[in-house]
Amino acid sequence: MAYSALLTDLYQLTMLAGYFEKEMHDTPAAFDLFFRKPPFLGGYAVFAGLGSALDYLSALRFTGDDLAYLKSLRIFKPAFLDYLEGFSFRGRVTAMAEGTVAFPLGPLVTVEAPLAQAQLVETALLNIINFQTLVATKAARIVTMAGPGEVVEFGLRRAHGPDGGLSEVRGAFVGGVRSTSNVLAGKILGIAVKGTHAHSWIMAFPDELSAFRAYAEVFPDSSVLLVDTYDTLESGIPNAIIVAGELRDRGHRLAGVRLDSGDLAYLSRQARRMLDEAGFPYVKILASNELDEYIIRSIQENGGCVDIYGVGTRLATCQGEGGGALGGVYKLVRFGDQPKLKVTSDIAKSTIPDCKRLVRAVGVDGKFQMDIMCRMDEVLEPGEVVFDPTNPARNKPIPASARLEDMRSLVMDGGEATGPSPSLDEMADRCREQLSRLPEGVLRLENPHRYKVSVSRSLNDLRMQLIDEVRRGYPHSVVRS
Amino acid sequence: MAYSALLTDLYQLTMLAGYFEKEMHDTPAAFDLFFRKPPFLGGYAVFAGLGSALDYLSALRFTGDDLAYLKSLRIFKPAFLDYLEGFSFRGRVTAMAEGTVAFPLGPLVTVEAPLAQAQLVETALLNIINFQTLVATKAARIVTMAGPGEVVEFGLRRAHGPDGGLSEVRGAFVGGVRSTSNVLAGKILGIAVKGTHAHSWIMAFPDELSAFRAYAEVFPDSSVLLVDTYDTLESGIPNAIIVAGELRDRGHRLAGVRLDSGDLAYLSRQARRMLDEAGFPYVKILASNELDEYIIRSIQENGGCVDIYGVGTRLATCQGEGGGALGGVYKLVRFGDQPKLKVTSDIAKSTIPDCKRLVRAVGVDGKFQMDIMCRMDEVLEPGEVVFDPTNPARNKPIPASARLEDMRSLVMDGGEATGPSPSLDEMADRCREQLSRLPEGVLRLENPHRYKVSVSRSLNDLRMQLIDEVRRGYPHSVVRS
Repeated sequence: MAYSALLTDLYQLTMLAGYFEKEMHDTPAAFDLFFRKPPFLGGYAVFAGLGSALDYLSALRFTGDDLAYLKSLRIFKPAFLDYLEGFSFRGRVTAMAEGTVAFPLGPLVTVEAPLAQAQLVETALLNIINFQTLVATKAARIVTMAGPGEVVEFGLRRAHGPDGGLSEVRGAFVGGVRSTSNVLAGKILGIAVKGTHAHSWIMAFPDELSAFRAYAEVFPDSSVLLVDTYDTLESGIPNAIIVAGELRDRGHRLAGVRLDSGDLAYLSRQARRMLDEAGFPYVKILASNELDEYIIRSIQENGGCVDIYGVGTRLATCQGEGGGALGGVYKLVRFGDQPKLKVTSDIAKSTIPDCKRLVRAVGVDGKFQMDIMCRMDEVLEPGEVVFDPTNPARNKPIPASARLEDMRSLVMDGGEATGPSPSLDEMADRCREQLSRLPEGVLRLENPHRYKVSVSRSLNDLRMQLIDEVRRGYPHSVVRS
Repeated sequence: MAYSALLTDLYQLTMLAGYFEKEMHDTPAAFDLFFRKPPFLGGYAVFAGLGSALDYLSALRFTGDDLAYLKSLRIFKPAFLDYLEGFSFRGRVTAMAEGTVAFPLGPLVTVEAPLAQAQLVETALLNIINFQTLVATKAARIVTMAGPGEVVEFGLRRAHGPDGGLSEVRGAFVGGVRSTSNVLAGKILGIAVKGTHAHSWIMAFPDELSAFRAYAEVFPDSSVLLVDTYDTLESGIPNAIIVAGELRDRGHRLAGVRLDSGDLAYLSRQARRMLDEAGFPYVKILASNELDEYIIRSIQENGGCVDIYGVGTRLATCQGEGGGALGGVYKLVRFGDQPKLKVTSDIAKSTIPDCKRLVRAVGVDGKFQMDIMCRMDEVLEPGEVVFDPTNPARNKPIPASARLEDMRSLVMDGGEATGPSPSLDEMADRCREQLSRLPEGVLRLENPHRYKVSVSRSLNDLRMQLIDEVRRGYPHSVVRS
């Protein structure tokens, strides 16, 4: 995917112009990208989008066209436009691997660069990572509920714009979806494409049976027949069984049937029984129609016999309570040689200053126990007390038996990726493995267990000290006038 | 925006291959694109996306790369791939103008073309029109509630992918938004870009006042100062007033202040009073922070003094009950010389067959009274009874004094646009004018008046006859086996 340097908010460019004029643009700065609440009222998020973000950063240049456009706005001075002509991102990026399970406040990504470079990229990084992480999380929730059932992505027609569809498929794959109907995504991302046929195929033939026969003739080994155009159990399944028999007589196998309306649990049970009784246990049942993690759970609780779930709108648009957007933010944590934080009247929403390590405590059973942020040079010890940044009453020690693992690594240095990007399959494998190590309650759809994220004593002290300084400081800046 | 021919679901291509092999691909077909429910539990939608859709249709070609990829899937035969090499869209498109207010069931767009052409384009047309119409509708709801207040779009960081941001801004402009922070959208769409600065600007300076002074020095005539980094009324507004005074002394005007947290109604009242008392009635107040139509209404009901609303996440992602996606569908209405419909067990969801005109009854006061679908050659008369396609109990006559207006026109013929696309400003003007002609209750956010959409007696008779034929027909197609 190609990204433009203009993929940003205007205020990033006006701030850059200001920093440039004040000769602050080359001062070193660091920003953390993190979120405050897991999406969908859930207990976790699945980090995704890094590969796309690194593509954006490494190719970031202003073209002649871009500069001509900026000049036409008549708000930028020539010296600044000259500066933009030579602009590129030369900074460092520290990040989680895609597919890693992430929790509130822990930085997913940290950008260290001269202020102008670190500031300009905020909007695009948030755009890319907010959406792909949101979709990967939705996909993980759906795949978790689907259990052994396969999940295929069908959302392009309801995705938010043509590229909304592409970004969505990438995120969905990180979260565990196995194939898509989106042909362009298949080509660009190198992933499996799948499909059936539409109701219009049936309507273009005199009757359902001739429509099925025609499709099976063209695709004798990969036909999935849509059986609900007229009546699923009275017409669709009986006709599919006829065609399955005709295919078998010619040495082929009907791949599947698709249910796209009605009571999917009931219809899939009946369809399974009818197919089995007719001698076609290998014909798979694909279900679609406004599916999400809740409806898939309900189908299973009601004894549904679905092999493949086709998930469209609700994955593509990340609908659902607490969905629609991941509220990821990008906050200044260090400027020059000073740690920085943003204080708000609600102390729980004040940010956590400075560059930091993000460490995960892992139990002897391999399960994740808590995440801890600490200072760069700090050595954490199991057993030491760590601090809840949102509620001091929840301070507690790192479990004594914990193994401590660093959750992030340097992925870009001097504007260049430190290594090749993992494949989407590797990301999906990581996601599956990470989900299996979550404390069980964290996966729950309703009122999940709240996974603990803490800060070390040293980082907590720094934060409290800075909050105090800001609070003492701001009336002063008024009085000074 | 450039669209790929592969921007489609795989099943469109497998169906094409089937139609090609069965020599049905050149049979004339017609599809209607329509929705069944207005989004956001509202009373209407604002049609948008046509210009993008026509761009897609007129440029639709398979590149050598595309064909190589399709060949690599090993599901298509060489003759079909050869056929795709020469493929282009040569059909007719009849559509509403963008910015037109639209209602359930009435076709927004009708595509008439050889079956293969009309079928392939389904996914991209739905992707483009579903999302832009959704956003235009959300924008219209927001702009309506903002009244005289201006609305600026700030959603890129939460939009669904980079192009999700672009498509979103286009739709938002059709719906009445006047400017955006998205620089790339500004360049591509030729629309106004606006911005302020971020909290990080404040944090990069020793204190808020020096940060404000620095920004105002660089942008003496266009600074909008973000006043909530420390404390809006104790620090932000007093510091902004100091800077407004310094700017005035140098012959400039502070453009505005931005409130981004807290009780926006209360803070905007206090800020207005403080600015006015200090002699700066011209300094505008911009409010942001998770705004949508409901929160804007609440700010106004609580006496807020906001001049400009910055709307981000909830516009960009179209969040809200009944939001997230417009459920637009694309249904075969004619094949060869036969009208077609899709019958479902719920008669209300059965489609309305055949190519049709969409006519709007307009009262002597210019207000819209009802929409009526009729057959192409039919002459409707005010006073004649028309039929509710979802509920026969709601049949009623076209008002006797109504003027009847055709709502659609031929916008593409032989694959070429019949005229130049209107500008985004013209579309926004149309939208504003159309909204002003809606019966008042239709604009209501909660439980809006349900605008009447009917079919003529002749079209209703055709529909009932076809439903009957299908119902009598499908057991036959089973028995035939």
